Amino acid sequence: MTEHRYNQPLSGNAMPRTGGPATMMRLPSAPTAEGLDACFIGIPMDIGTSNRPGTRLGPRQIRDESRMIRPYNMATGAAPFEHLQVADIGDVPINLYDLKKSVEIIAEHYRGILAQDAIPLTLGGDHTLTWPILRAIKEKHGPVALIHVDAHSDTNADMFGETAAHGCPFRRAWEEDCLINDKVFQIGLRGTGYGADDFDWGRERGWTCIQAEECWHKSLAPLMADIRAQIGDAPVYLSYDIDSLDPAFAPGTGTVEVGGLTTMQGLEIIRGTAGLNLVGCDLVEVSPPYDMAGNTAVIAANFLYEMLCALPGVPQGR
Amino acid sequence: MTEHRYNQPLSGNAMPRTGGPATMMRLPSAPTAEGLDACFIGIPMDIGTSNRPGTRLGPRQIRDESRMIRPYNMATGAAPFEHLQVADIGDVPINLYDLKKSVEIIAEHYRGILAQDAIPLTLGGDHTLTWPILRAIKEKHGPVALIHVDAHSDTNADMFGETAAHGCPFRRAWEEDCLINDKVFQIGLRGTGYGADDFDWGRERGWTCIQAEECWHKSLAPLMADIRAQIGDAPVYLSYDIDSLDPAFAPGTGTVEVGGLTTMQGLEIIRGTAGLNLVGCDLVEVSPPYDMAGNTAVIAANFLYEMLCALPGVPQGR
Amino acid sequence: MTEHRYNQPLSGNAMPRTGGPATMMRLPSAPTAEGLDACFIGIPMDIGTSNRPGTRLGPRQIRDESRMIRPYNMATGAAPFEHLQVADIGDVPINLYDLKKSVEIIAEHYRGILAQDAIPLTLGGDHTLTWPILRAIKEKHGPVALIHVDAHSDTNADMFGETAAHGCPFRRAWEEDCLINDKVFQIGLRGTGYGADDFDWGRERGWTCIQAEECWHKSLAPLMADIRAQIGDAPVYLSYDIDSLDPAFAPGTGTVEVGGLTTMQGLEIIRGTAGLNLVGCDLVEVSPPYDMAGNTAVIAANFLYEMLCALPGVPQGR
Amino acid sequence: MTEHRYNQPLSGNAMPRTGGPATMMRLPSAPTAEGLDACFIGIPMDIGTSNRPGTRLGPRQIRDESRMIRPYNMATGAAPFEHLQVADIGDVPINLYDLKKSVEIIAEHYRGILAQDAIPLTLGGDHTLTWPILRAIKEKHGPVALIHVDAHSDTNADMFGETAAHGCPFRRAWEEDCLINDKVFQIGLRGTGYGADDFDWGRERGWTCIQAEECWHKSLAPLMADIRAQIGDAPVYLSYDIDSLDPAFAPGTGTVEVGGLTTMQGLEIIRGTAGLNLVGCDLVEVSPPYDMAGNTAVIAANFLYEMLCALPGVPQGR
Amino acid sequence: MTEHRYNQPLSGNAMPRTGGPATMMRLPSAPTAEGLDACFIGIPMDIGTSNRPGTRLGPRQIRDESRMIRPYNMATGAAPFEHLQVADIGDVPINLYDLKKSVEIIAEHYRGILAQDAIPLTLGGDHTLTWPILRAIKEKHGPVALIHVDAHSDTNADMFGETAAHGCPFRRAWEEDCLINDKVFQIGLRGTGYGADDFDWGRERGWTCIQAEECWHKSLAPLMADIRAQIGDAPVYLSYDIDSLDPAFAPGTGTVEVGGLTTMQGLEIIRGTAGLNLVGCDLVEVSPPYDMAGNTAVIAANFLYEMLCALPGVPQGR
Amino acid sequence: MTEHRYNQPLSGNAMPRTGGPATMMRLPSAPTAEGLDACFIGIPMDIGTSNRPGTRLGPRQIRDESRMIRPYNMATGAAPFEHLQVADIGDVPINLYDLKKSVEIIAEHYRGILAQDAIPLTLGGDHTLTWPILRAIKEKHGPVALIHVDAHSDTNADMFGETAAHGCPFRRAWEEDCLINDKVFQIGLRGTGYGADDFDWGRERGWTCIQAEECWHKSLAPLMADIRAQIGDAPVYLSYDIDSLDPAFAPGTGTVEVGGLTTMQGLEIIRGTAGLNLVGCDLVEVSPPYDMAGNTAVIAANFLYEMLCALPGVPQGR
Repeated sequence: MTEHRYNQPLSGNAMPRTGGPATMMRLPSAPTAEGLDACFIGIPMDIGTSNRPGTRLGPRQIRDESRMIRPYNMATGAAPFEHLQVADIGDVPINLYDLKKSVEIIAEHYRGILAQDAIPLTLGGDHTLTWPILRAIKEKHGPVALIHVDAHSDTNADMFGETAAHGCPFRRAWEEDCLINDKVFQIGLRGTGYGADDFDWGRERGWTCIQAEECWHKSLAPLMADIRAQIGDAPVYLSYDIDSLDPAFAPGTGTVEVGGLTTMQGLEIIRGTAGLNLVGCDLVEVSPPYDMAGNTAVIAANFLYEMLCALPGVPQGR
Repeated sequence: MTEHRYNQPLSGNAMPRTGGPATMMRLPSAPTAEGLDACFIGIPMDIGTSNRPGTRLGPRQIRDESRMIRPYNMATGAAPFEHLQVADIGDVPINLYDLKKSVEIIAEHYRGILAQDAIPLTLGGDHTLTWPILRAIKEKHGPVALIHVDAHSDTNADMFGETAAHGCPFRRAWEEDCLINDKVFQIGLRGTGYGADDFDWGRERGWTCIQAEECWHKSLAPLMADIRAQIGDAPVYLSYDIDSLDPAFAPGTGTVEVGGLTTMQGLEIIRGTAGLNLVGCDLVEVSPPYDMAGNTAVIAANFLYEMLCALPGVPQGR
Repeated sequence: MTEHRYNQPLSGNAMPRTGGPATMMRLPSAPTAEGLDACFIGIPMDIGTSNRPGTRLGPRQIRDESRMIRPYNMATGAAPFEHLQVADIGDVPINLYDLKKSVEIIAEHYRGILAQDAIPLTLGGDHTLTWPILRAIKEKHGPVALIHVDAHSDTNADMFGETAAHGCPFRRAWEEDCLINDKVFQIGLRGTGYGADDFDWGRERGWTCIQAEECWHKSLAPLMADIRAQIGDAPVYLSYDIDSLDPAFAPGTGTVEVGGLTTMQGLEIIRGTAGLNLVGCDLVEVSPPYDMAGNTAVIAANFLYEMLCALPGVPQGR
Repeated sequence: MTEHRYNQPLSGNAMPRTGGPATMMRLPSAPTAEGLDACFIGIPMDIGTSNRPGTRLGPRQIRDESRMIRPYNMATGAAPFEHLQVADIGDVPINLYDLKKSVEIIAEHYRGILAQDAIPLTLGGDHTLTWPILRAIKEKHGPVALIHVDAHSDTNADMFGETAAHGCPFRRAWEEDCLINDKVFQIGLRGTGYGADDFDWGRERGWTCIQAEECWHKSLAPLMADIRAQIGDAPVYLSYDIDSLDPAFAPGTGTVEVGGLTTMQGLEIIRGTAGLNLVGCDLVEVSPPYDMAGNTAVIAANFLYEMLCALPGVPQGR
Repeated sequence: MTEHRYNQPLSGNAMPRTGGPATMMRLPSAPTAEGLDACFIGIPMDIGTSNRPGTRLGPRQIRDESRMIRPYNMATGAAPFEHLQVADIGDVPINLYDLKKSVEIIAEHYRGILAQDAIPLTLGGDHTLTWPILRAIKEKHGPVALIHVDAHSDTNADMFGETAAHGCPFRRAWEEDCLINDKVFQIGLRGTGYGADDFDWGRERGWTCIQAEECWHKSLAPLMADIRAQIGDAPVYLSYDIDSLDPAFAPGTGTVEVGGLTTMQGLEIIRGTAGLNLVGCDLVEVSPPYDMAGNTAVIAANFLYEMLCALPGVPQGR
Repeated sequence: MTEHRYNQPLSGNAMPRTGGPATMMRLPSAPTAEGLDACFIGIPMDIGTSNRPGTRLGPRQIRDESRMIRPYNMATGAAPFEHLQVADIGDVPINLYDLKKSVEIIAEHYRGILAQDAIPLTLGGDHTLTWPILRAIKEKHGPVALIHVDAHSDTNADMFGETAAHGCPFRRAWEEDCLINDKVFQIGLRGTGYGADDFDWGRERGWTCIQAEECWHKSLAPLMADIRAQIGDAPVYLSYDIDSLDPAFAPGTGTVEVGGLTTMQGLEIIRGTAGLNLVGCDLVEVSPPYDMAGNTAVIAANFLYEMLCALPGVPQGR
């Protein structure tokens, strides 16, 4: 057995894949982010969802279905566990019955993580959670660039008159000056809207909105090269809503929209962030009851691993 | 075709059972309770749940799976549609992102129904909803007797510090003096608790708590005869949580507890309320994602029909 | 390896249970009933169903899920394969697009089986199929006693004006004088009806109708002793609709009714027919899409095996 | 709240998406097509299917899963509810036990709709239904151009000797002179056949048959431009069989064939009909039991909405 | 927050039930059994199964579904966490590709646990595992009494000629003198066998075999009183195969047999072991792929909790 | 009815598709390969799997879901049943409890098939099975070219120290000199590894490894033309692991890796082997519990049919 400097996932030859700790990638647990370069953290929340619920069960299923992931990335050559200290720091103890209070709890929790200089990789949970995370990120890093992959723009003024809901986080983040507006990229938007100009709210603020139709039938590697050039070395947050994928690939989510991205394109997007100054990432909206066999969570687990592989400090290629 | 005085379910020979309006029992819709003796009404809510979500989808699935129910009760001889004007008045427009506001919306909505002298038969939705319904019931009828069938006592002081949650409605109703304490019957309680005395809170207030173990392996008809005698002609509210049933019978719910009642016992309980002065009924906690084939909703639909059959004004036997 | 006089199920130690021929109990196939004492035969039909379809897939799933059944009955001591020559003779080639023609095809097919003096054990298929089987049975044996286990009486005059449908077979059989009316027993009837007297049609013809409520919470062995005494040595047909069982036990069927029999009671009924002069049996209304994990089919397969164990010529006890 | 000239879908902020009427897009119901420009109508039929059944449940599931669709089309800019009066007019009361009679019932029902000058958008149901619809269409409009998207040519001479079955409607329509043969386009055909020339029957009549393999790995927008040019201003009927899609996208159907179209290509086809003189559309063969989580129905609901967006009178772009 | 002497399950008001560590009952993890009075331990194995596989996923699903269990037993008054130090010590690292080696690995692993004087409560895994556990138990305690609840006797001489398989553990244990033969009780046996005398092998060795039919329609509390009297103060091992339950209650298992025990009877059996000198317990044969909604695992988790409540040192009643 | 020289699949107009024998394509069974040009054969094994089990049920589900396949290939024009004598010869009686012995059983079984000069088309079963098949193939044909389509290279030195496991067969085959190393093509490899050089083991032996990323967004027909040129007229074995496909297409497998091939590409690969000297083919790793609706098995059945269409002796085109 090789000696390792950093935490390693439990090997599939040391324990059957279906056993061992049900942490992310069967990594060690840690009580806090202290001493970590990056951390996996869950937010078991779905009280911000508008259609099918279930994302409160997302973090547990993603962890469970991460059990097959081995340490080396065969596509990019990344070997994150040779370069970063990583652990699973558990879940945020949100208030299940009050969404507004949960927003505050999340913000405070992430202030603690960021104070340790660990990069948070979040297992959602509904998309409301990105609002308080971006608030904490801004307090640490100032306004950030944003790569937001989603079927929806999530820039509603409100839902049922409420400002906290999973259709509003990026409008809230904009109101709180969390974003560098000419470095905001929304990818995969599609479907139907309440007005013909639903996606223009962001555009009017300088954001780049790439509708799903622009992505069909082709590689997104060129798009990502372009985005990398535009972002440069600004700090970047990556928010990945699993419903950006077509429901053929990711049925286990709540607000499905047909005609979405493929998993292959999703991989191209995340791998395309390597080289950027990523300061945080999330993967949201996995709803286990709508994919009990777990393949949506398998995608989510792999995408979170790919985010880890793209973090600063992890060399690409071999 | 016979002429009927009152609304009738759409016949299975007039339209295939899998077609026709997806209302409760394929009854006519009505915009309000005006002119109705009884009404079916849904509350698509699950933001008060503590474990698995999904009850926001309950009313639609219950209606869908009510499609097989014919007008005559072959067990009791009841023929409710010959004696009562009944319709489906749709759903309560709750606020999905604020549970406390939803509690107020529900209370106000039921004030309107009760002002029309219609008896509400509610399709839940999570159990939080019984609190505001009982508030409106009390304003109309004064304190009422209660038959509460459930795996849980739902008398928590709070959950995550919140007073509105699906584990608290009967404590709230007690605080608001909605109940005649010596005419409160809780049937089916079981499982585990935060303290050895969890079920004693009600007992200390004069309630009768019948744990599930007392119900095993026997008919509950004698119990119901006893309860009828104790309630007499007081107004009664019947709150039926589908998780009172053992999960073998009702898998489609969120907070399952093993060792519960059988469907047969559930039918004995509801049929055993005939002759009482029922002023309202609910059937709560059906979570479709955990029983997509729909048999839990079939039970719920039949139980709601049986409640209709037990209402004052519907003769029993033939 | 012991020498056997008759066909034997393929042993679980000769081939993994999940392999081997997908015949009933992994028995040999036979092209016709020639030389057989009893035969398993399927009818892949669901065009007579009124609510959920799917019974056309029933015979295949029942055969698949029969793979665990070993030759000896541990409850009754019956050893059918030591006393009877049994095989699986495949399926009836019905016309999928014309129910009336399929009724004729089935009748003709069973005339052929009965001409070989084999007792047919039928894997359904929707309940319409019992009508043509009873017609063929009558041509061979004259009117027969009937044990009909079902949630429904299946004595509708017609459905959508049609006489062939799964709600009508026993009315048709009565019209064709297939039944000895004072030896007809319907067990498990329940639910709702189009009129308060739906179950009385049979009673008025001398049939005994035992509603499900009469069966709750007790053994049905005494009932079967009584039925055996009343039937005596008349030829008997046993028609078992899986929806007689409560949906907790048998979710995989199309017209579920709550509050039904238990599997244990179903076993008591079938085992209680031992000693009668059984001339044919069917197990109908298994709908695989509503129980893809297959436990409803497991019950069906076991019930068909128990019918085989109860046939004349198979000694009981050991 | 804006005043609207025409019926509008019930807003997601007026009622939770999982509540409200289970009509198509939560639109108002109407008893007939009177006064409507277009109407959604269901045919709960599956007795014409050859393999897996279940399409009788299609219309209800499509309506249920249409609940997320908002009024504006973000891809095309279409705003159908600003230009057309649309409602859900319920289901056709077919005869479940006689397919031939159902064919007549459907034809007569559509004569009534067409007499009101409403364009029918049909929620199937099995593909047999297109035969009687085309008959009624022809009586109103004369022979029509046809865009038929499907895995199968559906031009069998008969099935089990029957002329009414889901594999035959376009042969029947041809026999009744419903089609303009040089303006018939079949897209997506594939799989296996009873003869090497199965797809040539149409070609010999002047039809254009585009096999699925010709569609792989590319956009179908150019194909649709070509088809629009060939059809010109002839009246056109669009018949969309969900099994045209690869089963990865649309698992919930009965006669799946691998290697099909993608949802993205399906959207390109339907959006590519804008500008044509569409006189009727259907979406058939959704079988809910094979996709209980409902994503196949989500596609179907969106495709029907896209058909509405493509109707004459709805401007494209913004 | 109360100070506790021993480990406590994480409270549902400290973290949503769907979050927190996925350990048994959300208890703390421990690397070994050192300092523990009792420990939960998993064996993710299914290579000893004969029909449906899947039990290798059992321990993870049981832990996941244990998330609702609170510390106090409302039926018996037991409060195990006030009297015992308990933790989850993870899984046994079996060899997935060699069953015989896994048997040795398990025996050695349990020697380590027993050396710490902790009582093991095992989450299976297929029933082969009880053989090596009993071997280790015997080395520590000498031969033990056995309460074995199961549909099958598991006393086959071999399967496919192999001595290690899930149908053989109790024959192996007998061969190794692990059992006190007049204190062995097998409850729930049923179904079919390879010979009429399959269940007599144990009887001939002095074991008591109670077939399922003897248990139907009644409480098993009297049986357990009798068993307690016969066992006296001998050390006892409790092996609970979830397939002892009827598949209506526990569909998620591999070798289902119809006509089994109810969950209520299962609770009576386990609660009926209180007062005995339990030295180890297991709950085996949960196969998650056959109950993805997880209710079988909910039963398993509760049964394991009830075993904990019945251990020596935990007072009953309150 | 036409007279046929060779076995034909049972026609869908002779028997409903959901009935008839559950053999591959409803072909006749045969006890051995004698007199056959090609044979379908199953191996119901999953004891070599590392993550989710279930492939022991693969052969039965593949056969069941092959029921729709008609004799003519509409894409390639192949008509295999006009040129080859084909039957289903059942399953290999492996030893479920000892993987090493099963490897020997399989090798011996295939020696028997190959002795009859029949080409085996294997329905798996986990991938361990290709090792003994290649051993038997080599004994007959000498070293062969290999087209291996898979997400994984399956060239591990061992797993848990064992040489027989589903991650090792091609390393074993190499060790036994079964392969012509410069004619080995691995297509679809991806995901994560234990080392950055996992896929290089084959490359170092002269194999061509085409990672999935090289296949995205394009046709694989050119790749296959290239492979055909390199293989020439060497004997070729085709081993198709269903997990080569992206889980959107093939969810029903055990070790899913995201970002895989599409079904369309899979068809291109298999059709692209026409013209080669195929001496055997397998389709492995279908796990029914993870796709109970069966579409993964539909792909598998069609791929096996396409393999048959590509065999030597079957003309392409028409």
